[in-house]
Amino acid sequence: MLARMPRTSTSANKAASPAKADARFRFRIRCGDLIAIGPGKIAVLEAIQEHGSISAAARHLGMSYRRAWVLVDELNKSLESPATQSGPGGASGGSSQLTPVGMQVVTLYRAIETRAEQACAEQIDALIELMKH
Amino acid sequence: MLARMPRTSTSANKAASPAKADARFRFRIRCGDLIAIGPGKIAVLEAIQEHGSISAAARHLGMSYRRAWVLVDELNKSLESPATQSGPGGASGGSSQLTPVGMQVVTLYRAIETRAEQACAEQIDALIELMKH
Repeated sequence: MLARMPRTSTSANKAASPAKADARFRFRIRCGDLIAIGPGKIAVLEAIQEHGSISAAARHLGMSYRRAWVLVDELNKSLESPATQSGPGGASGGSSQLTPVGMQVVTLYRAIETRAEQACAEQIDALIELMKH
Repeated sequence: MLARMPRTSTSANKAASPAKADARFRFRIRCGDLIAIGPGKIAVLEAIQEHGSISAAARHLGMSYRRAWVLVDELNKSLESPATQSGPGGASGGSSQLTPVGMQVVTLYRAIETRAEQACAEQIDALIELMKH
């Protein structure tokens, strides 16, 4: 989107460079080499909550069933008590839903993102102000 | 680090799983498809500030000169006024230093990380509390 331009800004440059700046936090908790909690795992939890199974969640996110299953498995192994539970269909292929712990993980994670953005709004605006508009 | 374990936590599991949880924000500003400002570019700026040239910064960070140069170039093109300036050695190979804008970018970015962690300390603790200890 950003073309090669002279570094000195002019109003012509501004008109030619309308790309909107998008500021975003990514929050992760690592545990040794593993990303125990991060945006990918949270997205899978939310999709399970919405779609009712790991396979439907994987389809919704455009990832393989195996990948979604591994993310859920890694997360559950990192937690004292698991974030998901299987429904009557059994552990593979059947329905899944979030446990109260799983819901708490999603709520805390999204609250962390929101609070971070609010707490840093002034500094984020100052940084964006330094960019070409 | 995390071995396969039964999901039900026991004190034996706790003893066998001492990996410390490490919570971290990564803050990025995208501009179209480009990451205009992110942890990689900030690390290069800090290394230029410390080591006085793009080539020394690249060596310090274990990246190629070309890679460091591209990061700096992308950043400078995203900003109204550049974050770095070349010393007497010329644009390639010579010394580089941060402009006042470059120092401001680094300061704002690190302030954003610190403020985010402080603002979310309670929620981060609650999330870590749900993990195996």
